[in-house]
Amino acid sequence: MVRIAVDAMGGDYAPREIVHGAVLAARDLGVAVQLIGPPDIIEKELRRHKTKGLDISIVPASEVVSMDEKPSRAIVKKKDSSIVVTTKQVSSGLADGMVAAGSTGAATVAAQIELGRIANVSRSAIACSMPTSTDQPVMLIDVGANAECDAHQLLQFAQMGALVYTALYNMENPRVGILNLGSEETKGTQLVQDTYKLLQAEKTLNFIGFIEGRDFPMGKVEVVVADGFVGNVALKTAEGIAKMIKLMLKQELYASLRGKIGGLIAKPSFDAVERRTNYNQSGGALLVGVKGVCVIAHGGSTRTAIKNAIRVAADMARGKIVEKIEKTFSLAKAGSAS
Amino acid sequence: MVRIAVDAMGGDYAPREIVHGAVLAARDLGVAVQLIGPPDIIEKELRRHKTKGLDISIVPASEVVSMDEKPSRAIVKKKDSSIVVTTKQVSSGLADGMVAAGSTGAATVAAQIELGRIANVSRSAIACSMPTSTDQPVMLIDVGANAECDAHQLLQFAQMGALVYTALYNMENPRVGILNLGSEETKGTQLVQDTYKLLQAEKTLNFIGFIEGRDFPMGKVEVVVADGFVGNVALKTAEGIAKMIKLMLKQELYASLRGKIGGLIAKPSFDAVERRTNYNQSGGALLVGVKGVCVIAHGGSTRTAIKNAIRVAADMARGKIVEKIEKTFSLAKAGSAS
Repeated sequence: MVRIAVDAMGGDYAPREIVHGAVLAARDLGVAVQLIGPPDIIEKELRRHKTKGLDISIVPASEVVSMDEKPSRAIVKKKDSSIVVTTKQVSSGLADGMVAAGSTGAATVAAQIELGRIANVSRSAIACSMPTSTDQPVMLIDVGANAECDAHQLLQFAQMGALVYTALYNMENPRVGILNLGSEETKGTQLVQDTYKLLQAEKTLNFIGFIEGRDFPMGKVEVVVADGFVGNVALKTAEGIAKMIKLMLKQELYASLRGKIGGLIAKPSFDAVERRTNYNQSGGALLVGVKGVCVIAHGGSTRTAIKNAIRVAADMARGKIVEKIEKTFSLAKAGSAS
Repeated sequence: MVRIAVDAMGGDYAPREIVHGAVLAARDLGVAVQLIGPPDIIEKELRRHKTKGLDISIVPASEVVSMDEKPSRAIVKKKDSSIVVTTKQVSSGLADGMVAAGSTGAATVAAQIELGRIANVSRSAIACSMPTSTDQPVMLIDVGANAECDAHQLLQFAQMGALVYTALYNMENPRVGILNLGSEETKGTQLVQDTYKLLQAEKTLNFIGFIEGRDFPMGKVEVVVADGFVGNVALKTAEGIAKMIKLMLKQELYASLRGKIGGLIAKPSFDAVERRTNYNQSGGALLVGVKGVCVIAHGGSTRTAIKNAIRVAADMARGKIVEKIEKTFSLAKAGSAS
């Protein structure tokens, strides 16, 4: 049985929603879940559920890293924090993957330090799936682990992104594009120009060239490569605009009786759109390039989001994504290694 | 009467929609419109409308710069292109402002060469208004004129953006934020860190710090400063996600009879959201920092978009935005001038 370590203390709704999501995962997905945090708090939460026969264990951790702490400092200082102990479960081989929903920065730093980088991987990166207007999601990499990158690192993000996409969505040769301010070959910064040349030369990739912000939500590509600054702006702008449109719709429907009636009748359709665009369904982001499966769920994760994140972690562990990245980069050793 | 020069040959729906929009502006806004392009083509289009008593003139230009030409080369080569002649109307004092809907690159290069930069302005930038969930739009600057910028240039974008926002929306002291991957002071690239210090020290600005992609669509700020690469990605991602959500909504409403009925009843509400998020309503982007009023409309502009763009150009000319920027930068000469 796949064993997933879950930081019970991270996230806006921790520990209640985290523990609840872990119980659902243990029950519905047949995963062994390890909950990390102060045992008394976790036990109290577990008592709210029927857990008989489920493979749920508690791993003690006495401290918590809060959202407003500086990640690098907090991780070094708080050796017995739930996030550090969670990563240690993976690095020591006691778990096959981990899920954390608190500070993305803290989870990233903890995983980088504790799990370490895969040989020849220059930087780990965060890959995040987003919905599109088609059935096929798009994966953006990096969405914030590295504010500044070079072209070789972006090439590696493309390679890792393609491997992860294939493992997650069972699709061979996903199309890979570089996020740019135009789709013409001559456009953009020196960084995207240099990256273009490297990706074009990497024949194992299904590289389609530059892609604009208005095209990837239409499903014109499966993997979008960007430095962590640009990727983060794209991801969060997408989140903000989706929220804005839904809010506008609500405002306009409530502004008239006709709107209210129509809105009520069409509610199942609105709910379907909400489901398709809700991050609670996506299962969180993956930190790739480290020697272990690490899923970082949204800070606002509910039980459903946590369950889905555990599902992704379990899928990645079963799909041996770390071994696949290791293999790709051991073959490409002569290339871009730092 | 304010005189606006309009490139009749630029945009996906040129010359028909451009000429139509110009007629509407001349009729409804009391603006003198100059249409630039081949006279026979423009005359033919004008014959479709009642133009008696309207102040519409034709300025001949024999060539057209197409969307797929490299802007810098095309502008130098095609001296008698509609976009070059349009900018010359402004630089020679024959028009008080200009509107162009073709290639953003060509319009930007033509205006930069022909109008020249305002003294002490290091780089011109494109400012673009976007809707928010509130009544107040947000202005993003730069959305693509400069793929790479330094902190002093971003400071100038902030200053020009605030002046333009005040002139366009009649709001003093608009809040200014820097687009970043987090709102914490310590986050981001060296560029945004350096820019933060400069904006904080510039006491004439209502600077609120860093802002994330998920916050500006909620109306938490009026002016968002970014380099042209990041700004362009944010703008186009916003456009793409808005389109995606509307498409999803359509898909889900059409998927069931109940959805179809509800959608039909609530149609006025959907139309209201469409109006609030349609670029045809926004009046286009402004190239700021050049010695003249230059509005760049969306390539897909219809008559309504062109009319609104002419309105913005006329408002900016009447509001003496160029003189206001000149004054600000002549006072700040000792500061950040290149």
